[in-house]
Amino acid sequence: MSPLDLKTWMQPHLDRVENTLSEGIEAHSPAALGEAMRYAVLDGGKRLRPLLVLATAEAVGGASNGPSALNAACAIELIHAYSLVHDDMPCMDNDVLRRGKPTVHVQFGEAQALLAGDALQTLAFEMLTPQDASVSAAEQAACVGLLARASGYQGMAGGQAIDLASVGQRLTEDQLRQMHRLKTGALLLCSVQMGAACVPGVSAPVQEALTRFGEALGLAFQVVDDVLDVTADSATLGKTAGKDEAADKPTYVALMGLDAAKAYADSLAAQAMQALADTGLPEARLAALRALTAMVITRNN
Amino acid sequence: MSPLDLKTWMQPHLDRVENTLSEGIEAHSPAALGEAMRYAVLDGGKRLRPLLVLATAEAVGGASNGPSALNAACAIELIHAYSLVHDDMPCMDNDVLRRGKPTVHVQFGEAQALLAGDALQTLAFEMLTPQDASVSAAEQAACVGLLARASGYQGMAGGQAIDLASVGQRLTEDQLRQMHRLKTGALLLCSVQMGAACVPGVSAPVQEALTRFGEALGLAFQVVDDVLDVTADSATLGKTAGKDEAADKPTYVALMGLDAAKAYADSLAAQAMQALADTGLPEARLAALRALTAMVITRNN
Repeated sequence: MSPLDLKTWMQPHLDRVENTLSEGIEAHSPAALGEAMRYAVLDGGKRLRPLLVLATAEAVGGASNGPSALNAACAIELIHAYSLVHDDMPCMDNDVLRRGKPTVHVQFGEAQALLAGDALQTLAFEMLTPQDASVSAAEQAACVGLLARASGYQGMAGGQAIDLASVGQRLTEDQLRQMHRLKTGALLLCSVQMGAACVPGVSAPVQEALTRFGEALGLAFQVVDDVLDVTADSATLGKTAGKDEAADKPTYVALMGLDAAKAYADSLAAQAMQALADTGLPEARLAALRALTAMVITRNN
Repeated sequence: MSPLDLKTWMQPHLDRVENTLSEGIEAHSPAALGEAMRYAVLDGGKRLRPLLVLATAEAVGGASNGPSALNAACAIELIHAYSLVHDDMPCMDNDVLRRGKPTVHVQFGEAQALLAGDALQTLAFEMLTPQDASVSAAEQAACVGLLARASGYQGMAGGQAIDLASVGQRLTEDQLRQMHRLKTGALLLCSVQMGAACVPGVSAPVQEALTRFGEALGLAFQVVDDVLDVTADSATLGKTAGKDEAADKPTYVALMGLDAAKAYADSLAAQAMQALADTGLPEARLAALRALTAMVITRNN
């Protein structure tokens, strides 16, 4: 799949995700809370996690436009969005720019940002449990179980706690990998696992290969993030560049140097591609996952 | 059920809830995050919401010591605990005392308090989706759906947003009721609804009467809270007394005066008791719910 084909594949998915998210947050909600939530989550972001959910559902032979995969796609984006809102707050990273716009607490105040983040997290679990018969209880329960464990104190939130505690520390490569495995890797892996969980009957070997794919992709994503923090400017990134270095945070670039970090990202991408081959799924159905992997490596924001 | 009998009924339930919560949060977790979470949720609180879940499960003829009701009981306490951690933060109520101890952000710092609250919310949904076959997928999905909707922007978080926006405002009684229906009422009602959802085959009329019970109890709880904020001291409350008045927040006492507020709480309790009678369930099985209702009205903290 060429970058052009990926764009063609992506567009209807992006439209459906955007519509579902928009429909899921009523603007006329208590005391402008819905407005802050919409600001945080709509019209921005690469939507990598939703696209991974949908591409994986397709890869294992499921429907990526049905409610099951679509709700899972939106739910994981809501978790990602909530984490960004809270991460940007003054007591955390104290950042003022996100997705090219003022951060939520700058725009709506700290208290509203705190509540909006909280409610975005909750909405993810509302999204996974539609109150009609459109998704089976088994799929609902499976997706909630995966998403909660990937997001919680032994997943994303745990990784953020390590991140907080490691400012100014020298981490070993193992410690850095563990931090990122939780902080960003857990949600990216979860995207792949939820995509597979939305389709009944995926075999254990396929699930295992997809898990290896998700793990390699998640780490590659973070290494590229560390590289971009050094090489890109804020306008391109849509967020403040150079902030890891300024905050004295441990990164792959700090640990191994810029060139070695770039080479490491490439080798992780190759591992991810190999894991896709190991699934034994038809190559035609893997094309979107391969193209998304390439996009993660070559992205400039 | 006399207050003494209630104590006898409660104790084994409280022990099981405490054990399940404690087992659910490993102390040795990333960067002391688990420690902050344990501090926030263990060894404190009246556990009213868990007790309501368990008493309702018993009332409709279910097992209150099985994993289904016990997980639901712990999950709703985790949501309650997360909301307190975030509510106490400097950008919200800026409170330093909770359950007779320094608040989480005072003890662990703001960033860790933010993360601990986030992860406590997530843990509620982990708790509702045990990764063994102990709870049916249908019950898992039903409880997640109820808890997420009661907690989110159209429930508790929405009520907090109204609360924030109404400082210094004169609310009508309707507006005040709507704020409390969301802010505290939604979770109390949800406790009752989850208790019923943990038991298959509860009839629609019983569910309807239980819903009326939960709504009346939730409002009664808040009116009593407003009364206690004026009449109790901080040591008895375990949190800062008089803070509503100090913050110029609208309350039932401010709206209708102390005596009328007390009388209103009594009439809501009578409504709740009547709704229990309307369920038509055997009185013996309703005893714990009646005793908990009496406790809500007569509590001094």
